[in-house]
Amino acid sequence: MERPRHQGMAKNTYMRWRLPLVCLLWEVAMIVLFGVFVRFGAEADAHWEEEKQEMNLTSDIENDFYFRYPSFQDVHVMIFVGFGFLMTFLKRYGFGAVGFNFLLAAFGIQWALLMQGWFHSFKNGKILIGVENLINADFCVGSVCIAFGAILGKTSPIQLLVMTLFQVTLFSVNEYILLNLLHVKDAGGSMTIHTFGAYFGLTVTRVLYRPNLEQSKDKQGSVYHSDLFAMIGTLYLWMYWPSFNSAISDHGDAQHRSAINTYCSLAACVLTTMAFSSMLQKKGKLDMVHIQNATLAGGVAVGTSAEMMLTPYGSLIVGSISGIVSTVGYVYFTPFLESRLHIQDTCGIHNLHAMPGLIGGIVGAITAAAATEDVYGKEGFIKAFDFTGVYQTRTPSIQGGFQAAGIVVSLLMAFAGGAIVGGILKLPIWGDAAAENCFEDEVYWEV
Amino acid sequence: MERPRHQGMAKNTYMRWRLPLVCLLWEVAMIVLFGVFVRFGAEADAHWEEEKQEMNLTSDIENDFYFRYPSFQDVHVMIFVGFGFLMTFLKRYGFGAVGFNFLLAAFGIQWALLMQGWFHSFKNGKILIGVENLINADFCVGSVCIAFGAILGKTSPIQLLVMTLFQVTLFSVNEYILLNLLHVKDAGGSMTIHTFGAYFGLTVTRVLYRPNLEQSKDKQGSVYHSDLFAMIGTLYLWMYWPSFNSAISDHGDAQHRSAINTYCSLAACVLTTMAFSSMLQKKGKLDMVHIQNATLAGGVAVGTSAEMMLTPYGSLIVGSISGIVSTVGYVYFTPFLESRLHIQDTCGIHNLHAMPGLIGGIVGAITAAAATEDVYGKEGFIKAFDFTGVYQTRTPSIQGGFQAAGIVVSLLMAFAGGAIVGGILKLPIWGDAAAENCFEDEVYWEV
Amino acid sequence: MERPRHQGMAKNTYMRWRLPLVCLLWEVAMIVLFGVFVRFGAEADAHWEEEKQEMNLTSDIENDFYFRYPSFQDVHVMIFVGFGFLMTFLKRYGFGAVGFNFLLAAFGIQWALLMQGWFHSFKNGKILIGVENLINADFCVGSVCIAFGAILGKTSPIQLLVMTLFQVTLFSVNEYILLNLLHVKDAGGSMTIHTFGAYFGLTVTRVLYRPNLEQSKDKQGSVYHSDLFAMIGTLYLWMYWPSFNSAISDHGDAQHRSAINTYCSLAACVLTTMAFSSMLQKKGKLDMVHIQNATLAGGVAVGTSAEMMLTPYGSLIVGSISGIVSTVGYVYFTPFLESRLHIQDTCGIHNLHAMPGLIGGIVGAITAAAATEDVYGKEGFIKAFDFTGVYQTRTPSIQGGFQAAGIVVSLLMAFAGGAIVGGILKLPIWGDAAAENCFEDEVYWEV
Repeated sequence: MERPRHQGMAKNTYMRWRLPLVCLLWEVAMIVLFGVFVRFGAEADAHWEEEKQEMNLTSDIENDFYFRYPSFQDVHVMIFVGFGFLMTFLKRYGFGAVGFNFLLAAFGIQWALLMQGWFHSFKNGKILIGVENLINADFCVGSVCIAFGAILGKTSPIQLLVMTLFQVTLFSVNEYILLNLLHVKDAGGSMTIHTFGAYFGLTVTRVLYRPNLEQSKDKQGSVYHSDLFAMIGTLYLWMYWPSFNSAISDHGDAQHRSAINTYCSLAACVLTTMAFSSMLQKKGKLDMVHIQNATLAGGVAVGTSAEMMLTPYGSLIVGSISGIVSTVGYVYFTPFLESRLHIQDTCGIHNLHAMPGLIGGIVGAITAAAATEDVYGKEGFIKAFDFTGVYQTRTPSIQGGFQAAGIVVSLLMAFAGGAIVGGILKLPIWGDAAAENCFEDEVYWEV
Repeated sequence: MERPRHQGMAKNTYMRWRLPLVCLLWEVAMIVLFGVFVRFGAEADAHWEEEKQEMNLTSDIENDFYFRYPSFQDVHVMIFVGFGFLMTFLKRYGFGAVGFNFLLAAFGIQWALLMQGWFHSFKNGKILIGVENLINADFCVGSVCIAFGAILGKTSPIQLLVMTLFQVTLFSVNEYILLNLLHVKDAGGSMTIHTFGAYFGLTVTRVLYRPNLEQSKDKQGSVYHSDLFAMIGTLYLWMYWPSFNSAISDHGDAQHRSAINTYCSLAACVLTTMAFSSMLQKKGKLDMVHIQNATLAGGVAVGTSAEMMLTPYGSLIVGSISGIVSTVGYVYFTPFLESRLHIQDTCGIHNLHAMPGLIGGIVGAITAAAATEDVYGKEGFIKAFDFTGVYQTRTPSIQGGFQAAGIVVSLLMAFAGGAIVGGILKLPIWGDAAAENCFEDEVYWEV
Repeated sequence: MERPRHQGMAKNTYMRWRLPLVCLLWEVAMIVLFGVFVRFGAEADAHWEEEKQEMNLTSDIENDFYFRYPSFQDVHVMIFVGFGFLMTFLKRYGFGAVGFNFLLAAFGIQWALLMQGWFHSFKNGKILIGVENLINADFCVGSVCIAFGAILGKTSPIQLLVMTLFQVTLFSVNEYILLNLLHVKDAGGSMTIHTFGAYFGLTVTRVLYRPNLEQSKDKQGSVYHSDLFAMIGTLYLWMYWPSFNSAISDHGDAQHRSAINTYCSLAACVLTTMAFSSMLQKKGKLDMVHIQNATLAGGVAVGTSAEMMLTPYGSLIVGSISGIVSTVGYVYFTPFLESRLHIQDTCGIHNLHAMPGLIGGIVGAITAAAATEDVYGKEGFIKAFDFTGVYQTRTPSIQGGFQAAGIVVSLLMAFAGGAIVGGILKLPIWGDAAAENCFEDEVYWEV
């Protein structure tokens, strides 16, 4: 059992029975629920041979697998290596960053397959899954990885699993409200993943406020090589973001367009980040924290609009702005949030996900409101916004209004959910470390 | 020439003429054999323009390249970065881990293209290759990388090349017996790659038993950053394993299904690994060795059955069990194998590949035996197990029996082959280091 | 402001206003130019729904996105992680290697989209872009990353941006001359990317010759972990090179063939590199510099011919030779270039890109000259070399001559362009560090 250094701060971080119990019980629950509910979708089922004939498909290449699997793998890398290594920047928390991210994401994707399945893929009492479900499960977990960034180094693995359980649930409800009830477009998740995930995480970390955190200040920094490990995470997130934003867009031009817009936005974002990183530092030197994080804001900020006709120059503008906002956030907002609002945001997710997520939601609303049949073509217009069935009469400006409503709903869900989940995580039963032992792998890992 | 520290243990590790000679002679042999035998397959040959017309293909997208190339690249990353970096956990053997893995795999894929080509792609005196051959060559080399894990740090690069030469040969014979003679299904290689590769490697390391290995005990551990490097390997293996198990499955639903099953199995495996890693340690702390390795057992254990109708919950069960077995193996079996059976297994391949490989073979046999036309559909059933031609009358239970026979054959080939090759590697001419210099890059690398 | 250690060497490396100004002004210029010129190509535009009907396309899978996007992502990884991490081998310049590579590439791809767009995708006053343009922009920037290798550690970020601006421009002109005027084939860029990029960079570093560079000799080496970081770069370049050489080849057999040839060439290259690395070192030990670099020469050396009927054994021969030439280059040529020709080539790009690039150009010319209708098939022959329209009457031997001319043009452009740009970079206004502060992140980064 971990012997705390100061008797007064004694906290029980002994995981031996609690962590195994949670992991095993929950995995058993997954097995039972999967057994009852989850089956292969038509395109992954051996009956597809017959399905193909019924649908008059002449080639196996029409299987959705070939449209989305390469993007899925890129997204998968972003979740596990991207987020995992991005958070290894702390000098003594590399195992926790990569390892706990691995744990929560592995649990989260299972639970997300169920939750999202009940909402979106439920037919005749069964959840039918295919590659698109895998992508969506990864997306959902992405929002948990984001929230993890705010509380990095300050929570036990059990707290992370508990948070994942609740956050995946709330994510799925929020996503259902946005996509199904409001009929909002958000393929890259500016609202559902980033805005929701970030404000949820920020609320949780606010509730878990640790007044004595400066006791572990010496461990909150990076060392030379931990910064290089973090750059692995950064670059994989940056390079594969075009896949992220295009992964679940409509086949054809929409996927193609999403990738181009995201590529452009991210390229511009790097330049404005470097500019402001140098400008805001007295000696004019570049700060690795900005390069590791703010360069990614351009991907977040076109998450809603990338599949729309944002145009390459529109993407450059959005990317440029988001890089500036994000870098300024690291320099001025993060210290302010900590000192005044008691929001201790380890990775600065407010700068990388929250503000760029809001920008993304707003840009999406504007781009949707500005859509015309001229720009999209008659059929392209209907297809892009899915203006069919009951939505046949929706106009772009109304769509823009609903998009804006989606931002508000996501924020409300994040604040309310974060407050409740934060309260649950505050219970003294989850084994989190004392303030002086935060950001330290030795608490939960054999080192 | 390396001056040994203790005169008594003097060993000649001088590589200057031996290593270049082996590399160059063998590469010349490859060139000659490729010149005589290897040509482009129809889909990679410039004559394909005419071939397309003959086959009435209307689109270039029907080229197998587009069905398999993304998976091929993922597999390629697993072999070179995945296995290479997984083995960098040793504090002073990072160059050897990545570098020798690079060397043996680069030679192995050439030799595998030939060996597998003669057995499977030989037409009119020529081996005709395409993207599927590249994947299979990578697979074959994967089994060598596995065996390398057992002898990591204790062999010279020449020994590794010699082992690769023989192991690729034996792999190809074993694969031919299983796939062609027994008509066994094993798309992800639970039997051909993992069971064979691991027991082969364990037999080799048994033959090469070093009684004084505790002399280099201090170098057998990891340091903080070497563990993070190893996690790069782990995560790439974990993330891309769905591609591994689906890479050579039939086009369409089979590839799709394999990816889903593997995704599910691996997710479950992470939770049970974490649970048992914490449970089996007195202080309840997590052990990076388990996280780095046992989390991957779920991929191994569905290697045979992933393309079958294993179902997502079946995959969760298999993944859960294999994570437990593998972690328990690291804690109890590895020390037992070393102290009682004199099997010094540096990376613990018995836990990551041997036992999960056996599980994979057995699960495959059971899943095949349990197949029904109801579950697969009439046509899907025939296609999934290739029950055509002389195999038209095979029933699922007979297929299950042959699958089980495949495990036995793989084991026998591994033990017999490993014993012979181990004997060859024991000859005192290959330049391996003294026990006290094991796990040390300085012997073969400029540091 | 950085206080120089020796008063006499005082150099102003203060970036606070200069770097932001350049980044922001240039990004604004990009936005304006994109606004005026860049639009989505037909396959990324929402009008594609109608386009499809006009072109009688029955499936979304015919969108070029699905033919090229996986390769694009691999190329993207090569540029940002591959080149970025390959250059982290220096013990104190990891931030600069990864970070400046990130900066210059992010700017370069924007400028390349414009420059290459004006030359190749300009229709009715607009540049129409799709996934192929993204690949080509990455390719173009690849040549800048190569040149960066020669001046690594010795230049300020502003110098790198200035070099990028000019080099991308010259690259595009050279590419236009080769591909459009000479009608040369060079899908993997042996000439346009490697030969041009390397000789350009070598000329620049010659002009920027620093006589006192031995003052920072202690920082020019690597440490254990920096060599492992560099291996990440090496392996990603090595593994994804088949995607690089096949990314913009014709759909179908040409892409397929390019990947196979490159795979073979790179495999052979590893063996000859290991052989010569050991052979040329007195103690017979392997040198990480060779393993990190010369193993990649095989990819460079089939850059022109990979899409042709080079054949697998031809690829093995080319790869073997290039590995030898490159390793010998590191041992003998690099010191010679530095001491006699005053060419200080930090990463040894002369060995990895210049010489193998020349080999690639020559092998391409020979392979083209040796082409026959028998080997390619009647239609395959025309398609492979695009012998249509005004080129209908070109014979293979004439094509070979033009290919050879392409090498010469690339060399001339590189020398002339490098001399001019080197001269510009020599101006004392760009904030480069004193010789004693080279190869040191502290100059431009918060460490």
